[in-house]
Amino acid sequence: MDSISKYKIKSRIWICGEEGTFLGEGRIHLLKKIQEHGSIAKAAKDLNMSYKKAWKLVQSMNALTNEPLVERTTGGKDGGGSILSEKGEKSIIEFEKLLIETERFMNDQAKHLKL
Amino acid sequence: MDSISKYKIKSRIWICGEEGTFLGEGRIHLLKKIQEHGSIAKAAKDLNMSYKKAWKLVQSMNALTNEPLVERTTGGKDGGGSILSEKGEKSIIEFEKLLIETERFMNDQAKHLKL
Repeated sequence: MDSISKYKIKSRIWICGEEGTFLGEGRIHLLKKIQEHGSIAKAAKDLNMSYKKAWKLVQSMNALTNEPLVERTTGGKDGGGSILSEKGEKSIIEFEKLLIETERFMNDQAKHLKL
Repeated sequence: MDSISKYKIKSRIWICGEEGTFLGEGRIHLLKKIQEHGSIAKAAKDLNMSYKKAWKLVQSMNALTNEPLVERTTGGKDGGGSILSEKGEKSIIEFEKLLIETERFMNDQAKHLKL
């Protein structure tokens, strides 16, 4: 048997500021849903998450950056909603790039495990 | 402000076989305690873990390798105990090497985050 392919390495990652977690897989998922629905409430519903929890996560992310990731919009037929700022969109892209790099690294490390 | 050092990347890793988790930080911690005490029961107590849970974790690890990580010893004044096999010792070393490599990788990735 080829021991090289016997084990895989799984990982979870979090980007953290000094005050705690900034981005993780759950937060990125929420941002993508806000982007999709244009609304924190609809994003929360889609994720089976309470509005309060979603709102707190957004506040927590916004508090750890110099510019908010999620912004309120006003007007329109629904009386406003929430959209991602440029920084919010960039956060998704950077996190997903990091996930890909991490997977590549772990696959490479798995090949070298002497187990 | 230097954005290069603003964020850190935290991670958790698991080495998995086809049937599920083989090694993770908790399992390595348990192996090290078994190595220290020469006993699953004493290791479990030291970790505030039930003997049943510790025993199940050991069984789960042993089931995923061609040779067991933990072996029973017989005899002696305590009537035998448990020690790590060579494979068990190697597992700790390989996991800790992987942790160090992962930390190095994450520190490097953190420098390149465009956030």
